Amino acid sequence: MKLTAAQLQEFNDNGFLVVRDIFTAEEVDALRAESVAIFEHERSEVWREKNGAPRTAFGCHEYNELFRSLTRDSRLVIPVEQIIGEKLYIHQFKVNPKVAFDGDPFPWHQDFVTWHYDDGMPEPRGMNIAIMLDDVTPNNGALMFVPGSHGEGMIEAPDVNGRRWMERRDVARLIKKSSDIVAASGKAGDVLMFHGNTVHGSAGNITPLPRRILYVTYNAVSNYLREPKRASFIAHRTFEPVDTVVGQVLHAVS
Amino acid sequence: MKLTAAQLQEFNDNGFLVVRDIFTAEEVDALRAESVAIFEHERSEVWREKNGAPRTAFGCHEYNELFRSLTRDSRLVIPVEQIIGEKLYIHQFKVNPKVAFDGDPFPWHQDFVTWHYDDGMPEPRGMNIAIMLDDVTPNNGALMFVPGSHGEGMIEAPDVNGRRWMERRDVARLIKKSSDIVAASGKAGDVLMFHGNTVHGSAGNITPLPRRILYVTYNAVSNYLREPKRASFIAHRTFEPVDTVVGQVLHAVS
Repeated sequence: MKLTAAQLQEFNDNGFLVVRDIFTAEEVDALRAESVAIFEHERSEVWREKNGAPRTAFGCHEYNELFRSLTRDSRLVIPVEQIIGEKLYIHQFKVNPKVAFDGDPFPWHQDFVTWHYDDGMPEPRGMNIAIMLDDVTPNNGALMFVPGSHGEGMIEAPDVNGRRWMERRDVARLIKKSSDIVAASGKAGDVLMFHGNTVHGSAGNITPLPRRILYVTYNAVSNYLREPKRASFIAHRTFEPVDTVVGQVLHAVS
Repeated sequence: MKLTAAQLQEFNDNGFLVVRDIFTAEEVDALRAESVAIFEHERSEVWREKNGAPRTAFGCHEYNELFRSLTRDSRLVIPVEQIIGEKLYIHQFKVNPKVAFDGDPFPWHQDFVTWHYDDGMPEPRGMNIAIMLDDVTPNNGALMFVPGSHGEGMIEAPDVNGRRWMERRDVARLIKKSSDIVAASGKAGDVLMFHGNTVHGSAGNITPLPRRILYVTYNAVSNYLREPKRASFIAHRTFEPVDTVVGQVLHAVS
């Protein structure tokens, strides 16, 4: 699957792109079931909220066959290679369920500022891929983007308690009116890609509708981490190119 | 200003209705300035967050001329009289700024359950009017409604720490898919009306865009409070019909 010229243009203009109907209902069902099951493991990479609710499961593509298949699926890898222009390795993989009723907000940030300062990634040539496992709307905590903000380059953001949220004066400079924010809505099976410098955040989820997302972050092989400080299940040290397989997830579930 | 047949139908179907372009930019500017200034008063009806940020200013139509004018404005009163079918008095008035960056969420609820049990209002013949003072979108904490939920009638909700939020099992029964929620977006100067039994809530606001709303709650005069328990600045005891004036706010500001 290659992105069309119009899709490439949209990505370049906005810094994010939703590609519709990538995964089948059968694949989504399998991925959703596995995203629940993964939280049954007690591992240091599986993080929970204080009340025990699932928060983030990192690096589970390394021990779970279905997630491993997903990260190698050509429907994800080929479009990113197309944009980045070289072979990719997997920088991060995580399951991020924004749970019903109590989903926490994520303040505005750029991912690359963390990749750069905390992981030693030289250039903003990593790419986030979000696989939607539920219907995602602004009402249940869709990611909100500042279109075109990747064009600002990396904006300095100091480490405060281990997170590099964007400073409010910078957020206020970038967002002055409603149209400076676009929520990335989509249906289960849609895929969202966004640039490491695209400013984004998400509100909490007060609805009974969960908003489960799988995230793969690819990075250009030549842009490997120089001096990573975060745990290796958050910022992987295996810089070998992913070997792409066509329709890998479908194959694994059928 | 009377509602059209189509608007009445929409209100009856959904339990809420946004009426566009009611107040002029000049009126909105005046109301917005007054909504800031009102928090300079130290009064028991002016509530703040723990950090001192404005939260809710109740009953300020009783001591502020502009807000008094607003509550009598025919553009608000006539449409509600049209729906309720008799003369109205003011049950509640408040300024509710959902502040930028830190606006708190409001869980799902029906207003009438509180009006009924805590204020002694016999029937769901009160009506909420929200006057938008900023552009309101799902991204900065628009009210979210369950369309048609006023048809469920009042759903019991126990008092927990002074609030009657709807129980989660009831919310989950009413909201099963994305389309069971509609956010009431609008522009500054638009007016939103909703039935006392329409289930609604709002997410937090992480954006730099404030979402300031003025609320007037009217009640049918014959439906006056029997045994009110809340403070009189929250549930007013003056049951005299409002004397409507055409274009009152515009007159006050010009």
